[in-house]
Amino acid sequence: MQVSKEADTLRALYQNWTDQMVENPDLTIANLRSMFDEWGQPALEPENVSYKSDHVGGVEAIWALPEGADKSRVIVYTHGGGFAVGSADSHRKMAGHLAKELGVISVILHYRRAPEHPFPAQLEDAVAAYKALLEQGYEPAKILTAGDSAGGNLAVASVLKMRELGLPLPGGVIAYSPWLDMAMRGPSLETNAETDALVGKPILEAMAGMFLGEETNPLNPLANPLENDFSGYPPLYINAGGAETLLSDSERLYKKAKEQGVNATLSVVDGMQHVFPALSGRAPEATEELGRIAAWYKGL
Amino acid sequence: MQVSKEADTLRALYQNWTDQMVENPDLTIANLRSMFDEWGQPALEPENVSYKSDHVGGVEAIWALPEGADKSRVIVYTHGGGFAVGSADSHRKMAGHLAKELGVISVILHYRRAPEHPFPAQLEDAVAAYKALLEQGYEPAKILTAGDSAGGNLAVASVLKMRELGLPLPGGVIAYSPWLDMAMRGPSLETNAETDALVGKPILEAMAGMFLGEETNPLNPLANPLENDFSGYPPLYINAGGAETLLSDSERLYKKAKEQGVNATLSVVDGMQHVFPALSGRAPEATEELGRIAAWYKGL
Repeated sequence: MQVSKEADTLRALYQNWTDQMVENPDLTIANLRSMFDEWGQPALEPENVSYKSDHVGGVEAIWALPEGADKSRVIVYTHGGGFAVGSADSHRKMAGHLAKELGVISVILHYRRAPEHPFPAQLEDAVAAYKALLEQGYEPAKILTAGDSAGGNLAVASVLKMRELGLPLPGGVIAYSPWLDMAMRGPSLETNAETDALVGKPILEAMAGMFLGEETNPLNPLANPLENDFSGYPPLYINAGGAETLLSDSERLYKKAKEQGVNATLSVVDGMQHVFPALSGRAPEATEELGRIAAWYKGL
Repeated sequence: MQVSKEADTLRALYQNWTDQMVENPDLTIANLRSMFDEWGQPALEPENVSYKSDHVGGVEAIWALPEGADKSRVIVYTHGGGFAVGSADSHRKMAGHLAKELGVISVILHYRRAPEHPFPAQLEDAVAAYKALLEQGYEPAKILTAGDSAGGNLAVASVLKMRELGLPLPGGVIAYSPWLDMAMRGPSLETNAETDALVGKPILEAMAGMFLGEETNPLNPLANPLENDFSGYPPLYINAGGAETLLSDSERLYKKAKEQGVNATLSVVDGMQHVFPALSGRAPEATEELGRIAAWYKGL
């Protein structure tokens, strides 16, 4: 599959991580965290966006504030990294691009990470931040949850948790390459094993183990959003790369949501790796995808 | 020495790096680069500053653009990290705070790093960026060079190289904890060995080896700025932490510059670690130091 030269930057970064993990299977969680923070490298700086360090609902966070954005509209962004690595910093530019493209602001959560803080700490943090925004006067309909990979899981699952708590739901959910199925049942785990430069069963199993902790059921519906009824769920935008092993997670979420009457959209971009909007500002494939998301948001 | 709780963040980060390097002496340069990129963690986001990814004189760079800044005034910022690690990304917030405090803009250089690119590649990149700014119409008097640690060396040495090339010199130079003496003759290497949580002779020797490459003379005046005549040098602001092993480098630079008639200022803050402005926005010691630099700049 032909992808742009710029998009290949992300594959090369992932291959480099994979090589490092293969060469040194004893990398500590500290080593892995600093390595995965390189996730911020492929995206270019989104211009005319400023930032603010803050705490929201007790959760450390970075605000991304695009010039001219509608400050009454906010994206609660949860970063990827298997619930254990990645950070608000590594995803600052990615979330900044998304906020700018949608003309809104974003709060990027540095939620508690596994294994020190297993499930459901991440979900609690995402919900706590959302509740704090409601208390600050943001209208639920003007809030979006968004995230990538494990953070895409949180963007989806936090809304299921809000529903369980009887909270008013946000106006929409955006998931970049969400990792949803803690039981690893997606067929693309096999069919895309050769093309995905980063994600495979071993790394997912290691991360699921850290995330689930004492929760032994990989089908717990708040850890595995595929195990839910989506009736009444907000509009949902999902994207994924055609080359990634987690493609089936996106496809199954889309199918289920659609069948249960959700206004759901799925965008699969051929040849792309996991979380290809990490290339925001750099690769045309990411620019085009952001344009599609903006059109979706405008049409809500 | 009593330092603020916030300032202790930097000591703890350095101690964590030291522990990792002691535990695993085989960390690759890739591991070290990702680890040292955590240098960006202590600083908080400077508010009302936006960024732009760019190339300047062929050098990859990030512009830090504080709202309301005088865009005719620019800091060429060279990051620290022993010429081998650190990045424009890791120093984005630090340089953003400095630019904001001075009311100017900054271009943060992602110069070529050792060992792949030994001396004088870093210096060439810093000078190339400066020349590009002159070609773009920036007035030399309105340009500052600034940097920390090895990047402080570059901020100082690049101006010596400009002088050698007969270029008009910038209006001032700011060096945070500059690492200058590749021959490691500073007495604080011994006297502060117990209080510096990161920098000691072994790490300096490893980094000097990568930097110098085939240049076997640690007294080469462009690699070791202490080995120069500073007559006619621009106004120079130096700071250092009282607890750091490289304190003597700052003190010797200050003494020499002063003796040779340079308008030189030295600010040593008791108890502080190497490159304590890495705490910009977080620790009062860094806030106060930025205030002193702004007052110095205003008085030029």
